[in-house]
Amino acid sequence: MNKTFDLLTLGELLLRLSPNNNERIARTELLQVRAGGAELNVASGVSLLGLRTGVISKVPDNDLGRNIKNRIRFCGVSDDFLVYDKDKYARMGIYYYENGAHPRKPRIVYDRCNTSMDKISIDDFDDSIYSSTRCFHTSGITLGLCEQVRETAIEMIKRFKANGTIISFDVNYRANLWRDEAEARDCITQILPYVDIFFCSEETSRLTFGKEGTVEDIMRSFAAEYPMMMIASTQRIVHSPKVHTFGSIVYDCRGDKFYQEEPYHNIEVVDRIGSGDAYISGVLYGLLARDFDYRIAMEYGNATSSVKNTIPGDMSSSDLKEIDSIISAHKTTGRVSEMDR
Amino acid sequence: MNKTFDLLTLGELLLRLSPNNNERIARTELLQVRAGGAELNVASGVSLLGLRTGVISKVPDNDLGRNIKNRIRFCGVSDDFLVYDKDKYARMGIYYYENGAHPRKPRIVYDRCNTSMDKISIDDFDDSIYSSTRCFHTSGITLGLCEQVRETAIEMIKRFKANGTIISFDVNYRANLWRDEAEARDCITQILPYVDIFFCSEETSRLTFGKEGTVEDIMRSFAAEYPMMMIASTQRIVHSPKVHTFGSIVYDCRGDKFYQEEPYHNIEVVDRIGSGDAYISGVLYGLLARDFDYRIAMEYGNATSSVKNTIPGDMSSSDLKEIDSIISAHKTTGRVSEMDR
Amino acid sequence: MNKTFDLLTLGELLLRLSPNNNERIARTELLQVRAGGAELNVASGVSLLGLRTGVISKVPDNDLGRNIKNRIRFCGVSDDFLVYDKDKYARMGIYYYENGAHPRKPRIVYDRCNTSMDKISIDDFDDSIYSSTRCFHTSGITLGLCEQVRETAIEMIKRFKANGTIISFDVNYRANLWRDEAEARDCITQILPYVDIFFCSEETSRLTFGKEGTVEDIMRSFAAEYPMMMIASTQRIVHSPKVHTFGSIVYDCRGDKFYQEEPYHNIEVVDRIGSGDAYISGVLYGLLARDFDYRIAMEYGNATSSVKNTIPGDMSSSDLKEIDSIISAHKTTGRVSEMDR
Amino acid sequence: MNKTFDLLTLGELLLRLSPNNNERIARTELLQVRAGGAELNVASGVSLLGLRTGVISKVPDNDLGRNIKNRIRFCGVSDDFLVYDKDKYARMGIYYYENGAHPRKPRIVYDRCNTSMDKISIDDFDDSIYSSTRCFHTSGITLGLCEQVRETAIEMIKRFKANGTIISFDVNYRANLWRDEAEARDCITQILPYVDIFFCSEETSRLTFGKEGTVEDIMRSFAAEYPMMMIASTQRIVHSPKVHTFGSIVYDCRGDKFYQEEPYHNIEVVDRIGSGDAYISGVLYGLLARDFDYRIAMEYGNATSSVKNTIPGDMSSSDLKEIDSIISAHKTTGRVSEMDR
Amino acid sequence: MNKTFDLLTLGELLLRLSPNNNERIARTELLQVRAGGAELNVASGVSLLGLRTGVISKVPDNDLGRNIKNRIRFCGVSDDFLVYDKDKYARMGIYYYENGAHPRKPRIVYDRCNTSMDKISIDDFDDSIYSSTRCFHTSGITLGLCEQVRETAIEMIKRFKANGTIISFDVNYRANLWRDEAEARDCITQILPYVDIFFCSEETSRLTFGKEGTVEDIMRSFAAEYPMMMIASTQRIVHSPKVHTFGSIVYDCRGDKFYQEEPYHNIEVVDRIGSGDAYISGVLYGLLARDFDYRIAMEYGNATSSVKNTIPGDMSSSDLKEIDSIISAHKTTGRVSEMDR
Amino acid sequence: MNKTFDLLTLGELLLRLSPNNNERIARTELLQVRAGGAELNVASGVSLLGLRTGVISKVPDNDLGRNIKNRIRFCGVSDDFLVYDKDKYARMGIYYYENGAHPRKPRIVYDRCNTSMDKISIDDFDDSIYSSTRCFHTSGITLGLCEQVRETAIEMIKRFKANGTIISFDVNYRANLWRDEAEARDCITQILPYVDIFFCSEETSRLTFGKEGTVEDIMRSFAAEYPMMMIASTQRIVHSPKVHTFGSIVYDCRGDKFYQEEPYHNIEVVDRIGSGDAYISGVLYGLLARDFDYRIAMEYGNATSSVKNTIPGDMSSSDLKEIDSIISAHKTTGRVSEMDR
Repeated sequence: MNKTFDLLTLGELLLRLSPNNNERIARTELLQVRAGGAELNVASGVSLLGLRTGVISKVPDNDLGRNIKNRIRFCGVSDDFLVYDKDKYARMGIYYYENGAHPRKPRIVYDRCNTSMDKISIDDFDDSIYSSTRCFHTSGITLGLCEQVRETAIEMIKRFKANGTIISFDVNYRANLWRDEAEARDCITQILPYVDIFFCSEETSRLTFGKEGTVEDIMRSFAAEYPMMMIASTQRIVHSPKVHTFGSIVYDCRGDKFYQEEPYHNIEVVDRIGSGDAYISGVLYGLLARDFDYRIAMEYGNATSSVKNTIPGDMSSSDLKEIDSIISAHKTTGRVSEMDR
Repeated sequence: MNKTFDLLTLGELLLRLSPNNNERIARTELLQVRAGGAELNVASGVSLLGLRTGVISKVPDNDLGRNIKNRIRFCGVSDDFLVYDKDKYARMGIYYYENGAHPRKPRIVYDRCNTSMDKISIDDFDDSIYSSTRCFHTSGITLGLCEQVRETAIEMIKRFKANGTIISFDVNYRANLWRDEAEARDCITQILPYVDIFFCSEETSRLTFGKEGTVEDIMRSFAAEYPMMMIASTQRIVHSPKVHTFGSIVYDCRGDKFYQEEPYHNIEVVDRIGSGDAYISGVLYGLLARDFDYRIAMEYGNATSSVKNTIPGDMSSSDLKEIDSIISAHKTTGRVSEMDR
Repeated sequence: MNKTFDLLTLGELLLRLSPNNNERIARTELLQVRAGGAELNVASGVSLLGLRTGVISKVPDNDLGRNIKNRIRFCGVSDDFLVYDKDKYARMGIYYYENGAHPRKPRIVYDRCNTSMDKISIDDFDDSIYSSTRCFHTSGITLGLCEQVRETAIEMIKRFKANGTIISFDVNYRANLWRDEAEARDCITQILPYVDIFFCSEETSRLTFGKEGTVEDIMRSFAAEYPMMMIASTQRIVHSPKVHTFGSIVYDCRGDKFYQEEPYHNIEVVDRIGSGDAYISGVLYGLLARDFDYRIAMEYGNATSSVKNTIPGDMSSSDLKEIDSIISAHKTTGRVSEMDR
Repeated sequence: MNKTFDLLTLGELLLRLSPNNNERIARTELLQVRAGGAELNVASGVSLLGLRTGVISKVPDNDLGRNIKNRIRFCGVSDDFLVYDKDKYARMGIYYYENGAHPRKPRIVYDRCNTSMDKISIDDFDDSIYSSTRCFHTSGITLGLCEQVRETAIEMIKRFKANGTIISFDVNYRANLWRDEAEARDCITQILPYVDIFFCSEETSRLTFGKEGTVEDIMRSFAAEYPMMMIASTQRIVHSPKVHTFGSIVYDCRGDKFYQEEPYHNIEVVDRIGSGDAYISGVLYGLLARDFDYRIAMEYGNATSSVKNTIPGDMSSSDLKEIDSIISAHKTTGRVSEMDR
Repeated sequence: MNKTFDLLTLGELLLRLSPNNNERIARTELLQVRAGGAELNVASGVSLLGLRTGVISKVPDNDLGRNIKNRIRFCGVSDDFLVYDKDKYARMGIYYYENGAHPRKPRIVYDRCNTSMDKISIDDFDDSIYSSTRCFHTSGITLGLCEQVRETAIEMIKRFKANGTIISFDVNYRANLWRDEAEARDCITQILPYVDIFFCSEETSRLTFGKEGTVEDIMRSFAAEYPMMMIASTQRIVHSPKVHTFGSIVYDCRGDKFYQEEPYHNIEVVDRIGSGDAYISGVLYGLLARDFDYRIAMEYGNATSSVKNTIPGDMSSSDLKEIDSIISAHKTTGRVSEMDR
Repeated sequence: MNKTFDLLTLGELLLRLSPNNNERIARTELLQVRAGGAELNVASGVSLLGLRTGVISKVPDNDLGRNIKNRIRFCGVSDDFLVYDKDKYARMGIYYYENGAHPRKPRIVYDRCNTSMDKISIDDFDDSIYSSTRCFHTSGITLGLCEQVRETAIEMIKRFKANGTIISFDVNYRANLWRDEAEARDCITQILPYVDIFFCSEETSRLTFGKEGTVEDIMRSFAAEYPMMMIASTQRIVHSPKVHTFGSIVYDCRGDKFYQEEPYHNIEVVDRIGSGDAYISGVLYGLLARDFDYRIAMEYGNATSSVKNTIPGDMSSSDLKEIDSIISAHKTTGRVSEMDR
């Protein structure tokens, strides 16, 4: 399996504009520019850990498209599969984010309608793409964007699958992208037969897919319905916008085994956005680089997500050495040095 | 009661200059400019929640006076009753504020002597002002500024009262504005017969007014002496400069009923200044917009104050929708979404 | 003529996002937030000079709409005629601006399609608006936005005119808003019969309206066709992005007289955006506050525009005292103090 | 002549607060903090060039006093003669400065009344101060502050003179500090008999002292009246706030010789404040370090002032090596390297 | 004992470059410049508390050397004993620091090889230095820099001791400066016979010096071997990068008495760097200014260190008044005001 | 000629740290981080114009190495040939840059000794590199770094040449890298026989290589000695640090033809660093993408260099569209729009 890429992801790229510190969108004079988008976050996380990744997307052929292209490259993700929209009115998706502090929650304002991504088509890409990667990942956000994107995504999943690519999928249910939960469920269940690695929160499993019982019951039920390799659910406790606990459960469908560890407690949250995507990047790295060892995948997922919470921006900034040292400190019961120097 | 304004407040406007983050006044190279002043904070809080307010004050006719005028308008407060001091040496009151972090306390340096506000006179305003508002608010800070301001304030209270305006008063005792507590008490007791809505902390009630017994005893004692409608005391616990608990007790003098709720715990304090004023703005909004429902007033007061602590600057920045959602989350025992999007 | 407002303007409000100094949109990490929009710029300029103004527009009912509402108030313009779009996908118009430096030109990226403004309707406003102002101003940008806005604008012009309001119109031709020059001309000529005060550059007069001869010939030709009071053309020479010369010519149609003065040379341009709108604000102020003295109007126009070039943001920040002192220095041949203190 | 200090200066210390770049005081959100004061500027300039200096002043014993004390030390000036005002209401003098851009002038707002400096007294200092320095410098600003400061200054001049100290004095006429020019003249002429080194602009010589004729005539006239060693006048041409020309003329009273050189043309002005003080620091350095060579003093004055214009803040930041290289480049007609590396 | 200085310290000066807030070195666009170096931190802490201090070091004769010289003066430390390295390739030691947030640790990257400090020689200083101070302090970092520095340091210790100076020494073991613990031990034990005041952590006592038993046993063991006056160990608990507990134990060797107090809990850590040095500055201040009262020394040490954690940069910024009020609040069990105003 | 890269360059990568605006290195509190290095600048300029480039260099395996790696990718240059130095004391080359303003020159402080680059070896790279690119570029800076780098560079030139790669070389004489001009000449003349495209300033030709006569004579003389294809010299006039004129002369050695155009006048210089490298990138782009058309190469060189001067940082930020529009405006004599929108 000598592919050019370890991972390609499909998703919308977004510029995120945020006030500094605790300033508010409704009155700020300054906005920080960051790149985001769930699937980009996954690709960049995997890339920083050392694998070769790229992102499949469509952006306007203007200064904002170039700004995000540069940022993608900055974090080590290939821009080979960025398609440029030359329409005069082409636009970049934007979202605005402000930090929270208890009892005030973090806050997002989206401005992502009618973007270049909404015009992405299967014809924008050469067929060689489907044999170029070991793993393909996308999410329910992509499926929810619009009809045109949905069709492109489903067709891509099928073509990648047909070329022996591992398919990873994160449900990532967002109420504001779907008419209702039924619409989301009907769409997503179409692609579940193709999915090898499945990420779905317990809450979405219950509310959207109508699953019942313990989280283990839920996972077994998915595995019974679909030929999945692995299912993972994150388990986050939000004590306040600035303090979280994070852990997860990973299910080996074929071995019928569950993997968990002591969660990360008292995470000092700086920026919560993208930590779910960082989890996926850790898991995918663990699987792809460590021969599908589910325990290791879960450990990489938990560590990568926990540490993502402590840095600003949507994307991870941890290399392998950092994640390894975090895992090691997490497992240690003895004395740990207070500083890396 | 078809008045132009719901609330007018009388008080000094101050420019607040603060170092960023945890930098110190004694060595900073940069100062953030914010507008402040207890009574402006109250007016702006009420204005953001949706009522029509204005502030009565005197500022220099120079660039600093214009800077604060712009900021007042920015937060929705009318500048119709700002009077401009054209004296060549007219000056704006300034204060410097630095954040604390345990065991270091927040710190304030005042530079508010001989300001334009000290020259404010009853003759600066047309008589029509006294029939233009449903409610008038001022505080013990205004009374403590200087003789000239004190006389103006007391005369205004009388004229507003004579026009059927509800009088709101916050004792807000500040040791550095009075010779001693006796001076403060003697002055303030002059205006208590005119006060309908009375804000006084338990500590000040004891130390300045010599009250004894429980907080309920104290409130009943004030109500016995003066024809007040309502009395409120905030109850703040300062665990550290960055963690507070906030609640309050409201007393319906005529119905002889007390209102309280579970306080807001673990407030992640970003900027504590103005949270007492925000409390008053919440209470006044509740009273004026919700037909003097004391329970609702207390809830708006607690929520508005708690959330003020989480944003930088002296003034609130919450609109009604935000406060309603905070109250609702505070009362919920079930699952609450982690983010507003 | 005892109206509430001296001037109301109709136009789209835009948030302008700009990199600092000479940084570029395509790679910036920070964006400065400013409010803009040609007709808002005109209103704010007139307001800062001392008249009562308001802006008629439609913005989303979200944090971005609130951000711009605050900024409008900040500069003294009434937000009484802002209508809020409660649609879930309502969006604010945005544009990105970067400064130039010879041989690199300033640069703008627009993202203003499908905004709340595009839905503005004559039915959004009470009829009382049409008798509330002495003067109404809009521009060709508003006419060019979309069919819905165009209809609203034309109907407003008619209704204001019917109520005896002075109609001011700036052609402000922007190629990217119109299919071609013919479309612009056909639309604009519909409203010219209603226009009293007409702003049109010499270049647009030639290219769009097919005028010929000297600039005086052109002005006389417009006056011959339409019952205008006054016509003005700015005369800017762009030596480089950082050095301009600015003057103008004003034509009194009824008196058949032309007004000009020595242009402002060597303007040290900090931010060129909005200087054309500042010109209009100076002229309208001169007319409305100085009894339609065309010479004074031209002088206020030239000074307000010249000084606008020296400050950041789309909007003027000069009060009357500043403009008067600039005019006075411009006319002086003797010694002038180097600093205002 | 083995004194501890080469130069002591007497004057008010001021904190200067300035918006960034071209932002305006009337609307800024950020202020840069700098230290200033004419006589401090002179001392720090001399100190940076390599001599030992100190400043005599009185500041509040609070965080703002400490801020400026730190800044004084930062630039190498001794704080041994700073006296601290422990009054509860002690205040620091402040001024606000904004940059200009043609046709808008730079702008200053003063807030320097009732400061700690106004209480400075001859009794605040030990008599040993009068024998500790080779040269003492003060200016007409100090004389104009208030009666108390004036008396202190005049007495100090006498005591320093009595101890054989060279007395340097800069008229530095500021209209807003004096009732009228007669008051300034009457005060200043009292101290001229003590002055050895005299700085006075041609304009002030004419307007305040009623001198006539050429600048050479004026200088000779002063020298005829008073036993001065040297008289200097700067000759600045303000082409615009961002472009100046700077030169000066120095008169050796005893040798009856004038010194001039080709002025510095096309100075790219970044911050003009303090460049007059920098001139004095260059001249004093030249005199004190180069054995009273007037030509060298003039060259150091011109270079130090010219280069001061190119850096932000009131104080010089040039060391001797930099000034020497600027003088050398100024005199060179051949090829000069474009960069210092 | 009428010496010019109360304390001189010998050590390398470092510029510290740090990203803002939680940004990362590996991707930052901005670096904050601060001065640091363990022994400078000690001197500046003592200086701010009111004693006369200086630092002995060697820096390049370039802009970076000047930058740090200015900063040293800014915090009240004498630069009389800074020696300048005029070598063309002279370099300043630099280190990069990024803040942590659990589970991510703070992080340091050193760039301090081949600096000017490495060339410091006993011949760079006049012999008068050895009789100019009451106390001399250095640390194991200085000994570990290189052979040349080590020799200079040891010779200085001997000469200071010979002049009756109190010798203070902090082991401050840093693994990356020594080949192994044996090398450190062999070097340090050479100078222990000269040490009067000895700072050594319990961990280093065990690992490097092979001590055993309780911390009291360890201290008694050092005192048995060497003629020390006082030994101190800090006791820090790192709950997370943002929450520490801090206390210490001080041993009076001659009186055989131990001093401890309730530690400071829940310190809201802003910047942990230099808090160990701040501890030493508090202890040395207590000893030198309060007649070697060990209890007071311990209290000053604990308070100065705790509060250092709450401010950015390596150096303390607390004056005596602040430390006294922190000690007083720490000891109070009753009501404490929430703010300093 | 189907190579992976169009251009590979060999050179040291440097982090550039600069104060903002006109602040000075000797006192700044903030440093902007940028990537630089002459050969990186060339590669990134060519990459932005649309060709495939990479940079050959060695950087430390730490956060600073990662910072620059990210920046390299950000501007589209491949990091495939970055080698990482895992030495514990590995260091990144740094330089500090401050802007000038007449009469103060821009200023650079280097800290680039003993960096990872100094250890680069021919053995760090696989032989496949030599057949992977159409063109190889390096400069005299690389040759001057140290013996080890020089040997590596010369050997690389030979191996690339042997594989049919076009060799481009820029003399870029820097006095501080060589013992004297003779050393530089002796070294450089070794590699001139391999050079196809040669960049050398007229001044260096005369001083270092002893050439005489007109610039045309000089070029012909080089071409007579060595088998070059093309020689280019830039012609810059530095009116002041903020105003330059830029042009160049290109010589077609085989066709014996010279190419020149009207220089760019009145360039509004924002950041001069890297504009010489930008010239080379424009020329190489013109040659490689436009079939070695020397006129076009010269035009691209002049435009790319001129516009580089107007943006901050060492590297170009212009894409092909921008450069084409600048060339087109430069050649136009008619009306040009003032802004790109």
